[in-house]
Amino acid sequence: MSEQPESNIVKGADSWFNKYSAVESSPEGTFKGVKDRFNGITVDSSMETCSPDCFPTVLKRSLDHWIQSKTRGIWFKVHLSAASWIPELVNNGFQFHHAKNSFVMLYRWLPTDESANIPPYSHTMVGVGALVMNERQQVLVVSENYALIAGSWKLPGGYVEPNENFIDAAIREVEEETNIRTRFDSVVSIRHAHGAGFGCSDLYIVMALTPLTEAISKCNREIAKCEWMDVNEYLNHPKVHETNRNFVRTYLEYKRLGVRIDCAEEMHQVL
Amino acid sequence: MSEQPESNIVKGADSWFNKYSAVESSPEGTFKGVKDRFNGITVDSSMETCSPDCFPTVLKRSLDHWIQSKTRGIWFKVHLSAASWIPELVNNGFQFHHAKNSFVMLYRWLPTDESANIPPYSHTMVGVGALVMNERQQVLVVSENYALIAGSWKLPGGYVEPNENFIDAAIREVEEETNIRTRFDSVVSIRHAHGAGFGCSDLYIVMALTPLTEAISKCNREIAKCEWMDVNEYLNHPKVHETNRNFVRTYLEYKRLGVRIDCAEEMHQVL
Repeated sequence: MSEQPESNIVKGADSWFNKYSAVESSPEGTFKGVKDRFNGITVDSSMETCSPDCFPTVLKRSLDHWIQSKTRGIWFKVHLSAASWIPELVNNGFQFHHAKNSFVMLYRWLPTDESANIPPYSHTMVGVGALVMNERQQVLVVSENYALIAGSWKLPGGYVEPNENFIDAAIREVEEETNIRTRFDSVVSIRHAHGAGFGCSDLYIVMALTPLTEAISKCNREIAKCEWMDVNEYLNHPKVHETNRNFVRTYLEYKRLGVRIDCAEEMHQVL
Repeated sequence: MSEQPESNIVKGADSWFNKYSAVESSPEGTFKGVKDRFNGITVDSSMETCSPDCFPTVLKRSLDHWIQSKTRGIWFKVHLSAASWIPELVNNGFQFHHAKNSFVMLYRWLPTDESANIPPYSHTMVGVGALVMNERQQVLVVSENYALIAGSWKLPGGYVEPNENFIDAAIREVEEETNIRTRFDSVVSIRHAHGAGFGCSDLYIVMALTPLTEAISKCNREIAKCEWMDVNEYLNHPKVHETNRNFVRTYLEYKRLGVRIDCAEEMHQVL
């Protein structure tokens, strides 16, 4: 649930696409920023000492300079402490791109002979579900305190945290909700839905996990009920949604065929 | 690449989790908002007519009312035209949650006897790769104009657009980049990486698509080179990353075993 700590280094709009050179040597009285490989620039409010009074003048001078030097995308990472900059940025044609607790990122596309080519920010919430089946063919099921459908039985799971691998997320959620420890067995299914939380789409990755313990101790804050339910009961239970039944059917079919969808960890050659 | 058009209806922070009742009947001189099922409230700047001058007074009066009525999460959806509200919201303890082109969403958690329980916004970019193999065992490969690794051969693909299904995204990207029409065959693999664009994680879903046409006509803006490459050449090419080779190996193994990972569409019982 927690945000990653912010680094003190200016990361710019995009540390993946962009290969940063040094902070731009900019003319006196204009904002400094970090150039990106698309000939854009990112200004970070925490790296500048500009009073609210002088902000409009410095912004105007900077925009003139960037237009003259044919800079393309202009990014302003505005931290809470510099929120007074935002109305003036908007007055100067900036739009919002994304935000996290402590900052909002605004941008303006300067070229007039080329349409803006900036991808939208992430718009998909990623969650995991864990299909935990013991040797007696019982499925670990939970019923949430604040369920959308009251009393429904579902698989333990939840949102993937920032920078967390989805297998780790599934193992963590099972342990948090039920105190059962598990290890990864197989990917089972992916469900892609739209119109979900915060206007985002939703990817739900279901994994089969093998239980390493059996004694349930549920998290009372989140979970109303938790039990090991016979797989045939689960497949016929009126309070189990058809999608969830399908995950279990798919997994049983994998087992029948002797198929597993495995996972491997590796280092990306660029990242 | 484009944002979805905003609806005129107040959607609140979260149209999935929250079951909206009516707009709250609020005391004279306070902001109206939409209540959510967690006893929070969302105020939309486009639904209010409050001049910048009176904003601090109305905000203070509203906060007093919400504290008294034990409202929990307070959300302000601030559109560009009301950007002048933002510094005052920040002065009153609001933080950013997320933003899209035309608005930023700020929130403040009011309870002092309960820690904030608000999930972070989406932090995963979702992209697709298309493994298109013809009957002569040739793979459709592209080399991008602005590749991170110059001259490398990769699978056609790109980001999933808002509210787009990932299969549709793969079919669209192949057609945009190469003009080849395809249909879905099988999911092949998912790669989950961290530290990607905009500080997000990155989910890359690779699908096998069956080509319906063969004649390549590439998109010159994005693609430097495009060709049908013999699968054995691809598996040994020095300019193909090991991860990409693994996708092809995995798919060949699926074919050998006669396995397909299929997709089905259905309507969510709540959404």
